[in-house]
This record gives sequence, C-alpha cells and structure tokens, in this order.
Amino acid sequence: MAQTQNIERLNNLTINEMDDEDVVDPWTVSSKSKTGLDYDKLIKRFGSSKIDDELIARFEKVTGQPAHHLLRRGIFFSHRDLHNILNLHEAGKPFYLYTGRGPSSDSMHIGHMIPFMFTKWLQEVFDVPLIIQMTDDEKALWRDIKIEDAMQMAYNNAKDIIAVGFDVEKTFIFNNLDFIGRCPAFYQNMVRIQKCVTYNQAKGIFGFGDSDVIGKITFPSIEAAPAFSSSFPFIFGKKILPVLIPCAIDQDPYFRMTRDVAARLKLPKPSLIHSTFLPALQGAQQKMSASDPNASIFLNDTPKQIKNKINKYAFSGGQDTVEEHREKGGNTEVDISYKYLTFFLEDDARLAQIKKSYESGDMLTGELKKIAIELITPIIQRYQERRAKITDEVMQQYFAIRKLKYNYD
Amino acid sequence: MAQTQNIERLNNLTINEMDDEDVVDPWTVSSKSKTGLDYDKLIKRFGSSKIDDELIARFEKVTGQPAHHLLRRGIFFSHRDLHNILNLHEAGKPFYLYTGRGPSSDSMHIGHMIPFMFTKWLQEVFDVPLIIQMTDDEKALWRDIKIEDAMQMAYNNAKDIIAVGFDVEKTFIFNNLDFIGRCPAFYQNMVRIQKCVTYNQAKGIFGFGDSDVIGKITFPSIEAAPAFSSSFPFIFGKKILPVLIPCAIDQDPYFRMTRDVAARLKLPKPSLIHSTFLPALQGAQQKMSASDPNASIFLNDTPKQIKNKINKYAFSGGQDTVEEHREKGGNTEVDISYKYLTFFLEDDARLAQIKKSYESGDMLTGELKKIAIELITPIIQRYQERRAKITDEVMQQYFAIRKLKYNYD
Repeated sequence: MAQTQNIERLNNLTINEMDDEDVVDPWTVSSKSKTGLDYDKLIKRFGSSKIDDELIARFEKVTGQPAHHLLRRGIFFSHRDLHNILNLHEAGKPFYLYTGRGPSSDSMHIGHMIPFMFTKWLQEVFDVPLIIQMTDDEKALWRDIKIEDAMQMAYNNAKDIIAVGFDVEKTFIFNNLDFIGRCPAFYQNMVRIQKCVTYNQAKGIFGFGDSDVIGKITFPSIEAAPAFSSSFPFIFGKKILPVLIPCAIDQDPYFRMTRDVAARLKLPKPSLIHSTFLPALQGAQQKMSASDPNASIFLNDTPKQIKNKINKYAFSGGQDTVEEHREKGGNTEVDISYKYLTFFLEDDARLAQIKKSYESGDMLTGELKKIAIELITPIIQRYQERRAKITDEVMQQYFAIRKLKYNYD
Repeated sequence: MAQTQNIERLNNLTINEMDDEDVVDPWTVSSKSKTGLDYDKLIKRFGSSKIDDELIARFEKVTGQPAHHLLRRGIFFSHRDLHNILNLHEAGKPFYLYTGRGPSSDSMHIGHMIPFMFTKWLQEVFDVPLIIQMTDDEKALWRDIKIEDAMQMAYNNAKDIIAVGFDVEKTFIFNNLDFIGRCPAFYQNMVRIQKCVTYNQAKGIFGFGDSDVIGKITFPSIEAAPAFSSSFPFIFGKKILPVLIPCAIDQDPYFRMTRDVAARLKLPKPSLIHSTFLPALQGAQQKMSASDPNASIFLNDTPKQIKNKINKYAFSGGQDTVEEHREKGGNTEVDISYKYLTFFLEDDARLAQIKKSYESGDMLTGELKKIAIELITPIIQRYQERRAKITDEVMQQYFAIRKLKYNYD
C-alpha cells in the first residue's frame, strides 16, 4: 500500500528524548547542563547538517552581503538542504520563506523575536515572499482555550511580529482558524498530506498517545501545508516554488515529516535553517518561556523592568567574591547576560573585547549586566515605538488575501 | 482532563460486527441471512429506538400529512430523539435537515435515491432548510483517488441528487474539498469537535487502526460539523437550531459520536431517522452497490437494461416449477422484485393484493417481475428527464453560499 511505504523511514525520526539529559520536541525544550543543550549532538540525532564556516562563506558570496551575526555566531546553527536555496538564488530562480508562531496570551518575549529578526534579514537579502502562519488552532487543541480567544491571541501576536519590521508588500500573515476557511487550495493540500501519514508515523515522530484528541493527530498536516506553494494560489498562481523555513530546532519534526510527504507528492522538499534557543534569565538549562514572567524579558517590559530582571535574575558566570573574580575571571559559557549579548550585540569586535575582559576578571558581573541592560533596553524601546503604530488596520493589510509584489504568472 | 471524561461512554459504542452474521458500519454492510439484516437486532445493538405505529401516528398528527410509504412500511425504521423534532414542529419552532453522500465515480443507483426521496418529503412536510454534504474528502482519503477527481465525482453526484427534486430556495449543497475553504465557521467547529474526541474513542467507534492515515482519524469531525447550525452562519446567523438527520443506519456511528460531542459543547444533540438498505438484485444479503453493475439498477440505465437486469438477476422467491409455485406460492420475504415494490409502489392496497396473489401462487415470478419493471422504468425515466436539465449553472445555484428563504435573524 502506498501509505505504508515510508513507515520505516518516518519511524526512525522519533521524538527526541536525547540519550542523556536534553529534551527537544515541539512541546518541551530542556537540558540538565549549565551550558544548555548540546546542539552538536542534536544535529546528529535529528540528522540535519551543521552550518560551518564554508557554508557561511558561500552564503556571503551568493547574497553579496556579510552574514547576519546570528548566522556568524552559530545561533542559526543547523540546516537541511540550504545549498539548494543558495543554488536557486545564484541561478536567479525564485523561492519563498515560511515561518510561524504558536500564539500565546502573554506578550511575546525577546526570545520570540530572534527567528523573526533573522527571517526579516533573510527576506531582505534574498528579496523573496514571506509567509507567516499563526497556529491558533494548535493552541485551541493543546490548551484549555476557546476558539475565539485563540484567534485573538493570534491577532495580538501577529501585531508583535509585524513590529519587527516586515514589508507588507512581500509578507502574508494568516491564522489557521480564519484562513483555512478562506482558501480551498490550503484545505486540499491538508488532505493530500493527511493521506501520506499514518497514525503510527505521527506517533513515532511526535510522540502522540492513544488518549490524545484527534485534532492533535492531524495538526502536523496543517503546519506542513504552507511548505507547498500550491497552498497559496493567490500568491504563487500555478507556479511550484521551493521554500526555505527558518525556525527554532524544536519545530524540525514537523518538517522532517513534511520532507517525506513532499517526496511522496513529487513536490520540492522544504529547506530548513534552524536556530538555537535564547536561554531563560535563570540559566541555559531552560529556554526563555512566556509562562514564567521572571524568566523572560517581554517585548512590553518597561526599562525599569528590564533593568530589574537582568540585575536580579540573569544567571551570572562570575565568581562569588570580587577578589575571586579578579583572580579567576568570569565564565561566558554560562553567563546569561553575556549570552544575550551574543544574540543582540552586532559588533563582533566589541563582543570579543567584552568576552576577553570578563573572562580575565577585568570586567565584573555588575558591569557586564549594565552593558546588557544598555544594549537591550533601547532595542526594546525602538521596537515598542514601532509596535504602537500597528493598528488593526495595519494588521489587516498583512492578513489580506492578495498577490504580493512578485509576479509568478 | 476534560477530554477523557466521555471515554467510557464513547467506548461502549463500538464498531458493529454483530454477534452473528450481520456487519453494519460506514464501510461494510452485509448479512448471511437470505432475508437480509436483522434490523431489530441492529436497533438493540446501536441503542436507537424503533419507529412504531404510535410514533407514525404522532408523525401524521403533528404534520397533518399521511406518513410517507417508506415510513409506513418500516423502511425508515429507527430513530434517535425524533420526538424532540415533532415537539419543535408542533410548537412552531424551527429546525433543519442535514444529510449527505460519499460521492462515487459511477452513476448513482436506485438505492441511493431512497434517502433523498424521503428527505425531500421531510423537507416538504416540515418546510425547513436542508443541508447536503458531499464528502469528497472522505473518498480522497479512503480510496486511491486524486483530489480533483473526488471533487468532480461530488459535482456529478450532486446533480444526480438535485434531480430528485429539491427546492433551490430551501436547499444548500456543498462539497468539503471546496466548502471547508470558504467558511471559517465550519473549520472552527471542526476544531471544536476534534478537541472532544480522542484517538481511542475514534478507534472504538469506527474501528480505525494504527496504520490508518491521519486524515481518516479526523474525518468524523467533518461529518459531524454540519449537525451544528453554527457551521453555516450565512444561513442561520447566530441562531442555534436543532437538526434532524435522515440517513441509512450505517452512518449512525458518526452521529452517536456527534451526539456525545454536542453534549460536551452544550449544543442540541442531533435527532436521527434511519433507513434500511435497498437490497442488491442478487438478494438481501447485500445492499445494492455501485461497484457491481449487475447487482444494481442505475439512475442512468435504459428501459432495456432495467428490464434485462430484473429479469435476469432479481432473486426470486418463487418455486422451481410452475406446478410447485401454484401449489406452495412465492416467498415475499426473499423475493427482490417484491422488495423493490415495497420501496417504490406507493399504493398500499395494490401492494397487499400483489403480496397475496404471489404468496398464494396465483401470481408467477415472471408476472411479479413485469410489475416491478413497469413500476421502476417510468420512475427512472421521469428522473432522467429532470436530470437532463441539471446543468452546471443549475448546480451552482444549490452550491452558492447564501441565505435560504428562511429568516433566522
């Protein structure tokens, strides 16, 4: 039977409870190590490829742009078939970007901003259409949330995302609970995908159990569908375009499944570029999480809140006493303020200088925290200024079902 | 957890492999008995209620109309909460009708016509809106059929259904592969339903296995959604209306599930009225099936084909020789020509006279077959005249997303 031919392959892609302490799947990310997840092990386990210096050099050559600091520093660290996308761009052939977010009731935090900041940069250097899926149906299925509330969360979060600075002429944003009811081609692709994946395979990939509700079991088809350009005929017409999906590594199971389904449907396999996680204030064992206000710096925090949170909670790699610190130096491997600098401080020379100074003991934890506060606060303030301008009307422009500025006819 | 509270109840409603020989589920209907399925046993097994003389009398009193012969003769034989619908009608309160069809590539046969003939009559006596779902997505999931072909089958079959004579002002027909992408409220209800049913429950009710594709596992939510008026805001506005679902008894598992979900969602439980099956020409062990041309009289058969099929294949309850037949008489319990008369001959007195004459041996099998041929042929010819007028344009009127002639604001 056609639907069983890929079982073996899909079953190898099992839910990732790492041999040791790391857990990475779409619902849980945690590590017992103070330095956080072992991302090299994760690459081996997931079967993806490391982004190495050679690939970064090729990226720069093909785009004619210096690599983004998130790429240079290994924060986007892993990929699948990124070369295919670079080949296309080099040949002047089109592709598109697809990313998404599972909306939450809380404000988004700075960790959520990272993949969108990077996606914005990708869109700029490649000049391609971007599609952003808000999985409000997922939230309604996984949590005790009403449909209406899940939709409202999607709209609020979409405004947060738009404020990162996406170009409305090149960006289409949608929420499943509304859009699936407005695009027959999307639902038709959902069914095509649902036909290629058995319950056994979904169980193997996502760890579903028999007491999970049936909506959860089909949900992967909904996150997969935007990876096929035929789901958006109003943008792509009848043209079949490949896609590059920037996402945090925990979403990889969805797209491993999608890549197998693509092969079955004789459609291009999506390429992927994976990010690590911004750690929680308390330390790299946990990613920053919206459900713990003290672990996160939110996009709507005031300067005072940011200052207090970093001073109070940001795990320090410094020594217990000033004397000891001067002698032994700080540990940038576990210091959260330093980690945040690697995400937000674009200037490589300055970062290197801070690292040297902190590790040598010249710079104290208090000084390092001050640098982090003074870096992050204006970034958030500028963000908040943009966010204040995102009215319902502005948002609706991104959600409108329409052609983008590209012509694929 | 909310989603487990109904497991026990739903698990009792297991797939129906009858203790003895009868099998009745949405995918298989068969019996080893020459007289066909034991419908009384089925009522006990499914936990539905028998339509008895008292209920028929009440039906006639409430509607002010003589009962349809399909109701009088026990062809619509079972129900769930039909009294609720009669109470509503008596109180002048609105409800609606919902039925459907899994489209097939072949022409529909006379067995398919039965529930639609009866539904048309229900619509006329109650004067209520009717919604007809074409489950082309189901066909695409269960069979090796392309999405486009499944949709085309839905449109062809919809024309066959329209030709039964439904009033376009009161009837909305849709196919899932198109409509779900045109009605956000419908998809939202699908998610609400999907949230109330676990894989275990779906397995218990429908007999799904772990190697079934994930689309099959969610499909029941799609057949359930039209049972909630909020799935069709363009017809019902914000009004919550109860529904009566006329269907063949094999579809009952979907609506047992729907009734449990309705209770969870605090929405009215659908009422049901169930039909038996028109037997195949070869005998009552099998229902008429589109996949066996010699077992079925199709709606596009010529008079010559009808005559030949009944003469050649219709299982006879007559005796082996004329002498024996004159002596012992024919058996109307197994005679297929006679069974067809019970479905299509409206005149009770004439039917009783034929029964008497055949059972006494006065009427021979050839004579009975001639009566059946002369009854069915003009019914199909008149049907074909109507069918010839159902153009794409006519069909599109039934499929248009619009208000019906009722006002629920």
